[in-house]
Amino acid sequence: MPGRFRIQPRLVMATSTKPPSGMRDFLPADLARRNFVVGVVREIYERYGFLPLETPAVENVEILLGKYGEDEKLIYRIMHRGEELARVLKDPPADGLDADVLSDQALRYDLTVPLARVVAQYGELPKYFKRYQIQPVWRADRPGKGRFREFYQCDVDITGTESLVAEAEVCAAACDVLDRLGFDGYTLCVNHRKLLRGLIRTAGIDVAAEGTALQAVDKLDKIGKDGVLGELTERGIDAAAGARLLTLIDRAADETDEACLDGLAAAMTDDEGRAAIEQLRTLRGLLAATSAGPRARIVPKLARGLGYYTGPIFEIQVHDLGSSIAGGGRYDELVGMFGKRKVPAVGLSLGLERILVVMAERGMYPELAAGPELMLCWLDVDQAAVLGVARQLRAAGVRVEVFPEAAKLGKQMQYADGPGVKAKWCGILGTDELARGELTVKHLASGEQTSVAFDAVASHLRARG
Amino acid sequence: MPGRFRIQPRLVMATSTKPPSGMRDFLPADLARRNFVVGVVREIYERYGFLPLETPAVENVEILLGKYGEDEKLIYRIMHRGEELARVLKDPPADGLDADVLSDQALRYDLTVPLARVVAQYGELPKYFKRYQIQPVWRADRPGKGRFREFYQCDVDITGTESLVAEAEVCAAACDVLDRLGFDGYTLCVNHRKLLRGLIRTAGIDVAAEGTALQAVDKLDKIGKDGVLGELTERGIDAAAGARLLTLIDRAADETDEACLDGLAAAMTDDEGRAAIEQLRTLRGLLAATSAGPRARIVPKLARGLGYYTGPIFEIQVHDLGSSIAGGGRYDELVGMFGKRKVPAVGLSLGLERILVVMAERGMYPELAAGPELMLCWLDVDQAAVLGVARQLRAAGVRVEVFPEAAKLGKQMQYADGPGVKAKWCGILGTDELARGELTVKHLASGEQTSVAFDAVASHLRARG
Repeated sequence: MPGRFRIQPRLVMATSTKPPSGMRDFLPADLARRNFVVGVVREIYERYGFLPLETPAVENVEILLGKYGEDEKLIYRIMHRGEELARVLKDPPADGLDADVLSDQALRYDLTVPLARVVAQYGELPKYFKRYQIQPVWRADRPGKGRFREFYQCDVDITGTESLVAEAEVCAAACDVLDRLGFDGYTLCVNHRKLLRGLIRTAGIDVAAEGTALQAVDKLDKIGKDGVLGELTERGIDAAAGARLLTLIDRAADETDEACLDGLAAAMTDDEGRAAIEQLRTLRGLLAATSAGPRARIVPKLARGLGYYTGPIFEIQVHDLGSSIAGGGRYDELVGMFGKRKVPAVGLSLGLERILVVMAERGMYPELAAGPELMLCWLDVDQAAVLGVARQLRAAGVRVEVFPEAAKLGKQMQYADGPGVKAKWCGILGTDELARGELTVKHLASGEQTSVAFDAVASHLRARG
Repeated sequence: MPGRFRIQPRLVMATSTKPPSGMRDFLPADLARRNFVVGVVREIYERYGFLPLETPAVENVEILLGKYGEDEKLIYRIMHRGEELARVLKDPPADGLDADVLSDQALRYDLTVPLARVVAQYGELPKYFKRYQIQPVWRADRPGKGRFREFYQCDVDITGTESLVAEAEVCAAACDVLDRLGFDGYTLCVNHRKLLRGLIRTAGIDVAAEGTALQAVDKLDKIGKDGVLGELTERGIDAAAGARLLTLIDRAADETDEACLDGLAAAMTDDEGRAAIEQLRTLRGLLAATSAGPRARIVPKLARGLGYYTGPIFEIQVHDLGSSIAGGGRYDELVGMFGKRKVPAVGLSLGLERILVVMAERGMYPELAAGPELMLCWLDVDQAAVLGVARQLRAAGVRVEVFPEAAKLGKQMQYADGPGVKAKWCGILGTDELARGELTVKHLASGEQTSVAFDAVASHLRARG
């Protein structure tokens, strides 16, 4: 990794030291919380037999294009460099410069498309590939509360099977994570893309208008029934047919799942739609055997945004939170889009940022140690001796910070207990202590202070907890 | 996270499903190794009192420019989007389009400059900020063996102090990591930028040529003494002065550190250089109290590439490996470049990729479980019952994969033991087992098979190890 020696004068005075808009620095206290949650997610996912996968932040742009519909404009694109950029700028194509001419790489937009690429690429993967992936994604969306331009997703997916066991497993894993984190009031909303399509046809809407009808339905929670009816008409859909569709999908809040599915089955005129209802009945039976059972609810108006879903779809909604905390579904065609085998797949993505927001607002975190365990303060002894004692304590597993400069003891201890540091313990090493082979160990919260032999400090700290 | 429903026809057939050139997908077996090493790094760094920091992948480009010298051309730049891009393309500036017009963001190039930005930005950080950061960086370098365009660095830095304790701590932490991972033959090469500058002046080279002289010296290991002499002359440096410099820095291999420093002190005519020698003597004394002591060696020809170093510099070299495995040094001016306070700092970066390459080549990994712990195979029982048993086992901490489809038992077990899966155990659930509340548990490597009550499976697996 060579570099060069002269710092160039250009732009050395940066105007702002903030991170880019919509992106964040995570300081140690933030990371204590993030790492706690990620640790739980990882543990539960692994318990479900999911194995880790990581893919590059950068993808060839052709992998991403054509997968996300109109949100494609939110993809961050990497510009050509050096000679390639110079060539393009010097000799632009006849119809002018555009993003596709200036760039052929982009930042990851979600974790599902990279997984599909990986499954298409590596023949050595197991037939039923159960992977989890916890990595950031980038979207040039308008930043807002709990909405960032760099944010983490925690995905689980199972590829290679059409069995509804896969749906049940990804939903159960997500619910187990939420239960373990202490979430209580939340609902796993379940629907089926082919049920929605069957209902659209049953309502008398033209098959060609399916996509646009779904886009309107997707806004039901945001703009209400009248709003959606208006949108449907605007999109060229017959008003009576639109009203029929809304009557079918916007069910009474107190209707049981059985009654809902029975009602839809009675109205359904579409074979694919009937098959979807049977699948949902089976899926309910499977979910009942898992932790997701009591959380699951059939919600026929659930549409989910992404274009690639082909079967059951899910969304986890936390009560009193405006937006969903997880979403997913079956996407049997996506891997095949990469031009090789067709591989069925189902997955679910937990939104880490929203989980963190809710946990912070509701005080759901356990006590998490962010600062150092022991600050080693010293007076009138050689710095090499201080480092030697630190070495001994660390070898015994104590997390030790050494006060780095000569200073008055009071100042050192004030620093250890001060804001931004908040060490749990101080260890004081003076000439007396060094001669005796002991450390004066002070518990900062209580002020308790004891003299402890170097080789007993670790157990002293553990005993005090 | 909305999206739209129609998958657009454009570019749906991607030509390649490989990751971008120089970047990698990490499959589960890769991640077992990576996560093992990262876990050790994290544990040791935390034991030294370092706290985690994470910064965005994307930085405003003005933060990065002017920090890396001519390697700046390797920075990946993010292109403007949408209206901003359209505006620039439609109405380019008078002197034409270039990278700075088309882009104002870029991917992180290292972890040191983002740390300096963070220290300049957040007043609430502790005065002595000890942070570690393990994240990928991106460089559009030519890919090669062990050289990637996306790769992880594991950095430790201490800001806020000029004390050489900071140097000793970052070096000791890195050596502790390497010791713990099982590295044996390696050397911590130590030098001082101000010693080098003092020697350049002592040799009679003009102060203005310092930078260019260092660039030539940096190549000593690659192109040899004659090569560097040639380069020095090419760079306009007097041949006799160049030869004097090389005689000073290219010391006998068997010279002790004391003899080396004594020799340099006797020759040195520069006050700053003399002070640097005294600092190196002190640093040696501190390092001797740590795990880095036996590894440390004064190497006056060590130059280090990056422009921002101002004091001691380090590099860890593994014997028989062409390149270094870690590097770092003191950079007291970098935080101040962001226009606010001057904050001294010292840091060291472990190169994760090279550590992994060496460990693989030398067979240094312990046995790491990559596959599922137990594959739950089943016959003639309801799928919901299978999921119920899986739930019970998982609650007891077993990592369970459920065979997702109905299939012959032999086929299921063959899959469990097959390449790409390699489960450790099979659990067999048939009608008999379900009636008895037991699982037939088979250890796949040995073929041993026992019937175990559901609630005793976890302890059975733990007992067998």
